[in-house]
Amino acid sequence: MRHIPPLTAHLMGVDTHEEPIIFMRSDCAICRAEGFSANTRLQVQAKEHSLIATLNIVSNELLAEGTIGFSDSAWEFLQLREEQPVHVRHAPLVRSLSALRKKIYGHELNPLEIKTIVHDISRRLYSDIEIASFLTASAAGHLSSVEVTALTRAMVSSGNQLHWSGAERVFDKHCIGGLPGNRTTPIVISIASAAGLMIPKTSSRAITSPAGTADTMEELTEVDLSLEQLQDVVEQTGACLAAGGEVGLSPVDDLLIRIERALDLDSPGQLVASVLSKKVAAGSNHILIDMPVGPTAKLRSVEEANELAGLFRQVAKAMGLQLRCVITDGTQAIGYGIGPNQEARDVLSVLRNSPEAPPDLAERSLFLAANMLSMASGETLDAALPKAREILLSGQAWQQFQRICSAQGGLKTLQEAPHHCRLRAQRTGKLLGMDNRRLAQLAKLAGAPSSPLAGLRLHIKVGNSVIPGQPLATLYADTPGELAYARDYYHQNRDLFDIGPQP
Amino acid sequence: MRHIPPLTAHLMGVDTHEEPIIFMRSDCAICRAEGFSANTRLQVQAKEHSLIATLNIVSNELLAEGTIGFSDSAWEFLQLREEQPVHVRHAPLVRSLSALRKKIYGHELNPLEIKTIVHDISRRLYSDIEIASFLTASAAGHLSSVEVTALTRAMVSSGNQLHWSGAERVFDKHCIGGLPGNRTTPIVISIASAAGLMIPKTSSRAITSPAGTADTMEELTEVDLSLEQLQDVVEQTGACLAAGGEVGLSPVDDLLIRIERALDLDSPGQLVASVLSKKVAAGSNHILIDMPVGPTAKLRSVEEANELAGLFRQVAKAMGLQLRCVITDGTQAIGYGIGPNQEARDVLSVLRNSPEAPPDLAERSLFLAANMLSMASGETLDAALPKAREILLSGQAWQQFQRICSAQGGLKTLQEAPHHCRLRAQRTGKLLGMDNRRLAQLAKLAGAPSSPLAGLRLHIKVGNSVIPGQPLATLYADTPGELAYARDYYHQNRDLFDIGPQP
Repeated sequence: MRHIPPLTAHLMGVDTHEEPIIFMRSDCAICRAEGFSANTRLQVQAKEHSLIATLNIVSNELLAEGTIGFSDSAWEFLQLREEQPVHVRHAPLVRSLSALRKKIYGHELNPLEIKTIVHDISRRLYSDIEIASFLTASAAGHLSSVEVTALTRAMVSSGNQLHWSGAERVFDKHCIGGLPGNRTTPIVISIASAAGLMIPKTSSRAITSPAGTADTMEELTEVDLSLEQLQDVVEQTGACLAAGGEVGLSPVDDLLIRIERALDLDSPGQLVASVLSKKVAAGSNHILIDMPVGPTAKLRSVEEANELAGLFRQVAKAMGLQLRCVITDGTQAIGYGIGPNQEARDVLSVLRNSPEAPPDLAERSLFLAANMLSMASGETLDAALPKAREILLSGQAWQQFQRICSAQGGLKTLQEAPHHCRLRAQRTGKLLGMDNRRLAQLAKLAGAPSSPLAGLRLHIKVGNSVIPGQPLATLYADTPGELAYARDYYHQNRDLFDIGPQP
Repeated sequence: MRHIPPLTAHLMGVDTHEEPIIFMRSDCAICRAEGFSANTRLQVQAKEHSLIATLNIVSNELLAEGTIGFSDSAWEFLQLREEQPVHVRHAPLVRSLSALRKKIYGHELNPLEIKTIVHDISRRLYSDIEIASFLTASAAGHLSSVEVTALTRAMVSSGNQLHWSGAERVFDKHCIGGLPGNRTTPIVISIASAAGLMIPKTSSRAITSPAGTADTMEELTEVDLSLEQLQDVVEQTGACLAAGGEVGLSPVDDLLIRIERALDLDSPGQLVASVLSKKVAAGSNHILIDMPVGPTAKLRSVEEANELAGLFRQVAKAMGLQLRCVITDGTQAIGYGIGPNQEARDVLSVLRNSPEAPPDLAERSLFLAANMLSMASGETLDAALPKAREILLSGQAWQQFQRICSAQGGLKTLQEAPHHCRLRAQRTGKLLGMDNRRLAQLAKLAGAPSSPLAGLRLHIKVGNSVIPGQPLATLYADTPGELAYARDYYHQNRDLFDIGPQP
């Protein structure tokens, strides 16, 4: 409408995470003329790209006259170059916000309304507080299964979608999480794809945990594959073990998850849509959901797990997916290692059938792989379990894992952490339990997952007896400082290992 | 727990509005050791002050090694000096977030839970997205009148509270808003306080409108009074016409309103708590609520107004307040002026009984003042109206207004805007209506309220006949550029004046 002169783009050097921020000088003529002030929402146009960002006003020494600064994520989304001309104006009304208001008022949204909201979020038209409002209004079971289905579909169409010609059945698995060290995925995928199942597996990096499957796999091979590379690997080997970040499957999910974690919101509807949209976008139609239940796991009770499983089944049915939920024991960490490198060691030892392999990780993986085989064949779990075990014990799973790693760029050699120390018991007794959340915290204080060599290795499991001075775990870190931080935390939190009297 | 070395404070020169942001270098040893990354919530401790802020990571040229940058609002809240040592750590769990989660799940909160939420927000422990979540969960009638009462009380205790010894009855008024030029407050307060009522009136500046009462009054006298100055003025004159920003009455309201406006959330519960908490904190116990109803006003229907009035009455009753809601005509702008300076001209002309005074502003003000007098005396509105008119026509109201201004620092002389132009009709007809929202937008594009001389003056009212070339309004601006912006907008939006055929 009115002609506003362009400003010159400048990368500010400020990482505001996903929230796009732009920076303008308080004496900028355009700010004055347009009435922009701190926190105004502006639309920024740069060639064919545009987004809505929040304005911060900066003092003159931070920005040259006639320039406009961009946060890292805004710069990247607009694909800007230094000194490129950009135009700004007041953000237009985001139309789907009226649908959001309808949801706040407790009304059910129709699929088109949900699609419009998701589309506008993926175009970066929503501010963080608007996303927070959407998540709040749709949390706590406020979404019907019909709405969750629409949300899943909309999230799938927000990004790339894979199609596997010739493969009628495509498998995937997901774990609800909350158990440190529960790194079954590389083992399950190796067993099941060795048996001939197609599994284009993408995994996330850790968000709040000491390691995600992608972090662990990165210790062993390349995981940042392009969409084409991923397709090649799956066509060569029947499976992949890639990071989900780069391939753009349900990318709007990443925008939602970030705010959901920040709000620490339990939202079954969002969880189901998040998980299923990633799988459907990857072209999968047979999905196994692992639900660990335990007092310090994400799911605290069997009732909670069953309720979530019910929603998963309703939405899967509406979308024509085969889905199986299995409830597993979530009372303690799985395996011995916590942190990318330490978990990779456990994965390798199970796949290689080493004598030091953690039996619980092997058994959990076999149970999940057998469930997948039974979904594929229609046979019972009891019939499938020996087959899965045979594939693991015979070395076929290990060979298949090597094939996958080789197709992704080669198997790496594991490095050693430069610093470590032992955490020892102070008294005699029996290990009755361990606090998953504080164990995860301990590994994170040591530097995991950003230092992949950092983490810890457990030397005892629940039910074991201990005597004073016995090492309960070893801490690993990149620097002496981080090691000291983590050790101090342990000394303040010795009760994370619940050692009771010997009966 | 662990000793983390201090960093050195630096004012970054970034205005992020109320959201406190801190800036650290990506290579900062503490970031690495503690696992801080972009968007981590951190607790910052500086001497006896502390707050929780969101972290942005900056490149090395923006921040010296060993320093930590602060946004303007974080700097101010912590009362920092350059190079002061500050300590940072991961933000602790904010306990009241569990009450927020309870509200998200649709449960009624008890007064203690509401108090804790408000207390934590006022201590700046909530991020913007957490405030957005609270507002969403309590929007759309999701708060009971008991909860709104608790919210009002908690907001009152979040700040200063005035007590007027010797005055049993203390009055106040509030307008729900949405009508440009509806600047009755200075006139109503002058009439009612001339009649002996005590009215410690604080008003807000414009948030989304072209002028708030505080902006208009600032054209006429000093409005940024300290709490002590405000008390002195009221003790001298029985009233004041001050800005609410500096005196710290229900300060948490400002934090909530900012996010509510950004979300454009209709929230009757928050509105009632916001209005009543300001009045109760100012020591008022007799409150008049003006509710303009019209198709482009905030309240669109009498039903909507009655529902809101019902909630106002329930909460007022629970808090022992006398309250009267009056529904007024909200179909068109009141008076002729829009923008701080132009509205101040209308206020003066009414108080001085000038022949050019806008009759609608005078009558609206008399109606509201008479309502206040009738609340005070118990007599009918019909009996009170002539008394209010007598006070205005006799010049007592004008004398009282001058006394108030003189106590606040003296009556100012109105300035003239340096640039103006006329907006003319293109055809013959009759003015059937005007669009309040686009009129407000027009005045804002001309520069109001940040340029107080900017705005517009209407030359016709609904029902008037017009001929081609007749001036409908005059636009005022500080700069030719702003004048041109506003005029261009008018040329694109001529239908904001609804000119129908002459009957």
